[in-house]
Amino acid sequence: MKKLMNDPSKAVGEAMEGLQLAYPDKLTYTPDLEIITRKEKGDKVAVISGGGAGHEPLHAGYVGIGMLDAAIAGNVFSSPSPDRITEAIRQVNKGKGVLMVVKNYSGDIMNFGFSAELAEMDDVEVETVVVKDDVAVPDSTYSTGRRGIAGTVFVHKIAGAKAEQGAALKEVKQAAEHAIANIRSVGMAMSSCTLPSVGKPGFEMADNEIEIGMGIHGEPGVGRSEIKPAKELAKDLLERILKDYDYSESEVAVMVNGLGATPLMELYIMNREVQNLLKDREIKVYKTFVGNFCTSLDMAGCSLTLMKLDDELKELLDAPCDTPALKILDK
Amino acid sequence: MKKLMNDPSKAVGEAMEGLQLAYPDKLTYTPDLEIITRKEKGDKVAVISGGGAGHEPLHAGYVGIGMLDAAIAGNVFSSPSPDRITEAIRQVNKGKGVLMVVKNYSGDIMNFGFSAELAEMDDVEVETVVVKDDVAVPDSTYSTGRRGIAGTVFVHKIAGAKAEQGAALKEVKQAAEHAIANIRSVGMAMSSCTLPSVGKPGFEMADNEIEIGMGIHGEPGVGRSEIKPAKELAKDLLERILKDYDYSESEVAVMVNGLGATPLMELYIMNREVQNLLKDREIKVYKTFVGNFCTSLDMAGCSLTLMKLDDELKELLDAPCDTPALKILDK
Repeated sequence: MKKLMNDPSKAVGEAMEGLQLAYPDKLTYTPDLEIITRKEKGDKVAVISGGGAGHEPLHAGYVGIGMLDAAIAGNVFSSPSPDRITEAIRQVNKGKGVLMVVKNYSGDIMNFGFSAELAEMDDVEVETVVVKDDVAVPDSTYSTGRRGIAGTVFVHKIAGAKAEQGAALKEVKQAAEHAIANIRSVGMAMSSCTLPSVGKPGFEMADNEIEIGMGIHGEPGVGRSEIKPAKELAKDLLERILKDYDYSESEVAVMVNGLGATPLMELYIMNREVQNLLKDREIKVYKTFVGNFCTSLDMAGCSLTLMKLDDELKELLDAPCDTPALKILDK
Repeated sequence: MKKLMNDPSKAVGEAMEGLQLAYPDKLTYTPDLEIITRKEKGDKVAVISGGGAGHEPLHAGYVGIGMLDAAIAGNVFSSPSPDRITEAIRQVNKGKGVLMVVKNYSGDIMNFGFSAELAEMDDVEVETVVVKDDVAVPDSTYSTGRRGIAGTVFVHKIAGAKAEQGAALKEVKQAAEHAIANIRSVGMAMSSCTLPSVGKPGFEMADNEIEIGMGIHGEPGVGRSEIKPAKELAKDLLERILKDYDYSESEVAVMVNGLGATPLMELYIMNREVQNLLKDREIKVYKTFVGNFCTSLDMAGCSLTLMKLDDELKELLDAPCDTPALKILDK
């Protein structure tokens, strides 16, 4: 295994520490619990998220003004234990309540749910929203119902902006759920990924093979096929999304997301195809994000996310934010 | 070859168009010439850069307020022809002169030099700075003297900020040269990269092999060795830099740069090691950048860059910028 690591069993903690050390004035890191929090905590509803590591910059890369107040990492592809989540809630709670943004995986649902119950016993008001944006498959290896993937970044942005405005917990939750209802994603993988603790790829893919709808932990998608030109791949991904949700005559935010080992040049090409297809369908693009936002270790491939926008979501999407992985400047 | 592409011979143009389509309000794209320019052009000295494609987001990802006015891409790993550069100069020249930031590769030196001569014949004042930050080897496959690598991003930032302040061409050039004099980099590769036109890796590396000092086009470095823990790799890279330039008792900007296929988790771990080593050596870190800033297609690996700062460079580094690949918010 060729990875820039020391001890694979310490990789997550060392990565979180390395992230914090890049932003010592803005982030704090709690060793052993792998919690990253904002240093400058507003007197507002707190928004937190987390899940298995290996999807960097998700989640800790979105901690900062206008997005998350804390992120909690578990081991690679494995939910953080409730004690970590409970401690993160304790660190960010300013008495105005905490919204947890959880991706729909059984482990996360269980552990975040358990932490919410513990927090409520301590009279901390906690609400939860669950992201299940991946239209690829109805159920999956680690989820009952759809998986949560890159659309989670939009939910962080919308909920974080609403909280930053000083909205109440119920309003922040409503904004997040409003976003979730309008977000759909689907991905495609060109390679497996290598868990540090395992040291070799989880499975093999042939030299010309891809898988549409593969999950961000390598869970099965809708089947293998031969690699196709970017134009056809973009069309395949977009049609799966449009079949599930009617974006016609809408204004949308678009995310073309890399899974970790795919260079920007290829993501730019995918974006070209996506934008041209959306134009053909008269779906108006309001804002576009191209980059590595929600990855799967060293997996090659990409995902596509659309979020339908109305005036409220536009305002929240445009609101300034300052995090390691997403910065939006004040207009 | 598994790449998100259509026709490999059109990959660069389609990628540049895809980048522009993500920022239609901020960037313009000149088809066939692969020029990306700022839409909102200030009445100021223009700063341009460019070179072979395959290093995205370098160079076009740094076009925007506070950095570049234009970037010109050649084919993959191949210098843009003088007609492209000349056209870019024509597009950005506001009568206050143009600074060209060129990486030290023979093709770039020749083509940018030729374009400068052509521009001067048209009475456009053009100055050039050459980045040669890579301490790995004294000469290289495509360069006489040291290669220019990720430190180029710092030069874009410093020159762009100085130009944005309304400085004269000579002052912008001075600031860029001041930065260049204080920047050193070195990289390490864990894999080859695959040119779209070739379709297979340029060379093979064994499962446990790495190369310190490999160039961003796969040029030889200082030799192969076995993969080592991140701590030792960071130490090796840092010591090569410190042997070349005395950063002791300095304040520095640090860049831990991914080469395209290395996930952020690993770059964060490398940053942890670098920060700890700098602390041990009492070199004070002013600002840190971790991410994919100057890549080599789908090469796995990273590079490390240090820039020694004084008050002027700090001010220029902190100045706000708004580009696809680097945003710095106003304080």
